[in-house]
Amino acid sequence: MNTEALDDASIAAATALQPIVQIAADAGLAADALEPYGRYQAKIDVDRVSREAPPGAVVLVTAMSPTPAGEGKSTVTVGLGDALAAAGHRTMIALREPSLGPVFGMKGGATGGGHAQVVPMISINLHFTGDFHAITSAHNLLAAMVDNHLHHGNALDVDPESISLRRVLDVNDRALRRIRLESGDGRSTGFDITAASEVMAILCLAVDRADLAARLARMTIGFARDGRAITAGDLGADGAMAVLLQEAFKPNLVQTLAGTPALVHGGPFGNIAHGCNSLVATTTARRLADVVVTEAGFGADLGAEKFLDIKARAGDCAPAAVVVVATVRALKMHGGIAVDAVGADDPGAVRTGLTNLARHLENVRRYGYQPVVALNRFGTDTEEELAVVEDYCASQGVRCAVTTVHAEGAAGGAALARHVTELLDAAPSYTPVYPEGADVEEQLDALVRRVYGGAGVEFSAEARRQLERLREHGWEKLPVCVAKTQYSFSDDPTLLGAPSGFTVRVRELVPKTGAGFIVALTGTVMTMPGLPARPAAEHMGVHDDGTVTGLF
Amino acid sequence: MNTEALDDASIAAATALQPIVQIAADAGLAADALEPYGRYQAKIDVDRVSREAPPGAVVLVTAMSPTPAGEGKSTVTVGLGDALAAAGHRTMIALREPSLGPVFGMKGGATGGGHAQVVPMISINLHFTGDFHAITSAHNLLAAMVDNHLHHGNALDVDPESISLRRVLDVNDRALRRIRLESGDGRSTGFDITAASEVMAILCLAVDRADLAARLARMTIGFARDGRAITAGDLGADGAMAVLLQEAFKPNLVQTLAGTPALVHGGPFGNIAHGCNSLVATTTARRLADVVVTEAGFGADLGAEKFLDIKARAGDCAPAAVVVVATVRALKMHGGIAVDAVGADDPGAVRTGLTNLARHLENVRRYGYQPVVALNRFGTDTEEELAVVEDYCASQGVRCAVTTVHAEGAAGGAALARHVTELLDAAPSYTPVYPEGADVEEQLDALVRRVYGGAGVEFSAEARRQLERLREHGWEKLPVCVAKTQYSFSDDPTLLGAPSGFTVRVRELVPKTGAGFIVALTGTVMTMPGLPARPAAEHMGVHDDGTVTGLF
Repeated sequence: MNTEALDDASIAAATALQPIVQIAADAGLAADALEPYGRYQAKIDVDRVSREAPPGAVVLVTAMSPTPAGEGKSTVTVGLGDALAAAGHRTMIALREPSLGPVFGMKGGATGGGHAQVVPMISINLHFTGDFHAITSAHNLLAAMVDNHLHHGNALDVDPESISLRRVLDVNDRALRRIRLESGDGRSTGFDITAASEVMAILCLAVDRADLAARLARMTIGFARDGRAITAGDLGADGAMAVLLQEAFKPNLVQTLAGTPALVHGGPFGNIAHGCNSLVATTTARRLADVVVTEAGFGADLGAEKFLDIKARAGDCAPAAVVVVATVRALKMHGGIAVDAVGADDPGAVRTGLTNLARHLENVRRYGYQPVVALNRFGTDTEEELAVVEDYCASQGVRCAVTTVHAEGAAGGAALARHVTELLDAAPSYTPVYPEGADVEEQLDALVRRVYGGAGVEFSAEARRQLERLREHGWEKLPVCVAKTQYSFSDDPTLLGAPSGFTVRVRELVPKTGAGFIVALTGTVMTMPGLPARPAAEHMGVHDDGTVTGLF
Repeated sequence: MNTEALDDASIAAATALQPIVQIAADAGLAADALEPYGRYQAKIDVDRVSREAPPGAVVLVTAMSPTPAGEGKSTVTVGLGDALAAAGHRTMIALREPSLGPVFGMKGGATGGGHAQVVPMISINLHFTGDFHAITSAHNLLAAMVDNHLHHGNALDVDPESISLRRVLDVNDRALRRIRLESGDGRSTGFDITAASEVMAILCLAVDRADLAARLARMTIGFARDGRAITAGDLGADGAMAVLLQEAFKPNLVQTLAGTPALVHGGPFGNIAHGCNSLVATTTARRLADVVVTEAGFGADLGAEKFLDIKARAGDCAPAAVVVVATVRALKMHGGIAVDAVGADDPGAVRTGLTNLARHLENVRRYGYQPVVALNRFGTDTEEELAVVEDYCASQGVRCAVTTVHAEGAAGGAALARHVTELLDAAPSYTPVYPEGADVEEQLDALVRRVYGGAGVEFSAEARRQLERLREHGWEKLPVCVAKTQYSFSDDPTLLGAPSGFTVRVRELVPKTGAGFIVALTGTVMTMPGLPARPAAEHMGVHDDGTVTGLF
């Protein structure tokens, strides 16, 4: 087979898609629950989806600490879903929507790869059904209403210097990171990318429309001079924001190359937010399928942690099984090999790098799960390198399967699917790493010591002040959402493997009262990416017949 | 009949819509030319629309100089379309897309009103099929690539101070009018509303995808230090912009309350741009119908002038008939009555105000057309007032019909439709007000003297310098697009009626080399609106069942 030579776009273009109405009908969706967006995409009216069957089991796909190129987590998620479907399970996949901005920088798409993709991949990676745009609009309407309130007399006595709400755009535009409003009150503010918007986090955590509206109203934009929190509700913006999100709140149905139904909905950042697809998509998928395969952002210390401690608590969707994606390449990087040299055969480095995988597996166990390792095979991997990982897992009593879904689609995920199937009947067994009601300081201490393997937490003077303010407002028991590098368990991206003894330094504690969590900023977390010197955009175009070229 | 008591949203909600596939089939569209967006909206693949039949006749709806509330031009356009369809003509309507931003300020929607609306009105007035968002994305990607080019060494030697490209958002956000890029090179720039983007004008004037791509590449973003124009093509951004506009370039099919097919596509500003729906929508409608009713922005001095001198020349779509919408209320305002008092009976003021209508009619005649007056009746109009206008038109040999399409739908436009029908067989008779190849100075002089009725043009020192630069680059023969108040023939909004002897002062001449025109800025033209003290947004919301409230 020489399919790896074909790029993702070519593989996708060579596959005949089924009409989305057919995918929906096969998934048991009533015709009147479907709103088609083109021939191959549709939004689902969740009120018309039956709630009668017991909800399907959730399979969470997470990963070891990744290389900058990523370990193929979305690809494994799609391939596993296809393999489970091929094995006869009523399966649905739930994924994040890609962010438009990075597509024009250097990143490829976020719809899987090779023979494990969700399609139509070009549309999904571009405007899709407009959800990101709706979030951009809702967020920026609120921002405009904040400055409009100041302009028209500031009846709420908002302290302009306290305004934490920035604006958002779904474009990688470094020049907008910090701007001064010369035609406004002259204060400095800036733009984040839309995936970092609190509105995105809200859309992804709301259980229903009433919850969505209530969360929007609770968003804190800043403080009055007397210390009162000023919310979107105080400004009367929440209703209009909900209007702008009316369609965006409906999950999007697409299909994989193998015809497995997939809900692709919501795309919050994995650091400043919780990094998983919308709760409403996960819940809807569970109503329609016996098994729902879904993905968490980055490595398990960030992604799985937030899925379990934030999303699963908010929406009662604890997984039945947890899959940890590992690659020989990432293991070599954690074993001391430079990232641009991980293609060279080095079983010793793989062995050394196992410390990273081991800690992630230990964490998954601490949360109450028997982890399954998906060893995602790349073309440069040798049999000996793969055997190092398989032998290690066997020695630890951990299920492990080499996956080749990129090259082979569902067949390449059959072994992984068999492992996962053995766990599906188990009841969710989530054991919290910090108890409900823990203070944010206690939460951070538990995460750093028990999940990251560090020595403790240190707060900047600013974070200390913010901690006091959180307590004054009674927000200190909201779950913490740690914004941290994905490359290390620590807050230092150069500490690979399984570092210990480090202290995590919290720069800021930002209350996201609509999302219902407190962002703890550590290290240098970027909320507005920039474009590289030669952006991918330079190679794109559209033929006169409408065919897009150069996108992936 | 008491339907005027119902608001637009209630009337729209009470009407059962036909599935868009049915509307399309009735209009003769092949099923494979249709891409549904929900059940009642679709994009059209224009390559799959037959070019065999002779193109339909264009009926252009324009207006006298309006009041701030507007004279119901879109409503008359929709009602006339419905009336022509009811009379047995194969009719299609072509309209601009509403801008999202103003919906949350104080303006209502832009989809007609009463019993003459295009629907689904809530969706069309919100995100619709995402065209505005695609334009926002394409424009802002270019802006990001400009600053990224500066950041990565500025190989093209762009003079940062010369950069005229701003950013855009579809939100009324006055605080963004002027911003300083503190994280970029520190220069000042700002945001316009998306309708003011040159990308919008380009999308609306391109005849096909090749023309779209070429126009995007020609967009001037600023100048190099040696004076060279720097274009989107120089930055390699044009292809990616075309990718972002791939779907947006396809016209959107919807229906009126009466089931008449309507293409709603593109929404350029009526001052800084040419203010009419896309050329591709007009052309597509002409392939599908015998009569196409379309609208130009603002009064005839701005809207019809730009339709005839810019759009019709770019796309060979000169109208067969021109309808001028007039109201008793606007006539009273031009007759000296304060705008908040135009509801009181005053036939004398109506008579005095006829000077404004008269000049518009004279202009339409100068362009080679017999105008038809649509006297759009409001509830406060008296028979005597209406008779003043009808008698005047009769005395001038001008066709005139009182229209009541808001209250009565198609029946209220039957008389107008009969007048229009008499003109449909005439060949388009467009006579230019300035010849092809006229210099921008000559063009402006012709417009001011012959169309506006003024004494001449005066250029600011800045405009003089820009004129020299236009000549250096060979752009001086591009058609001029005058950004002027819509309330007066002059550049002073307080000079009502038919002023004369005035001079129009041109502040700036901005080359829009992608759109293919030169914007002449006069007076104070706002390219980013602000919100009022109590934005309409404050009254909006979504019920738990998804129903939108308070939008109109």
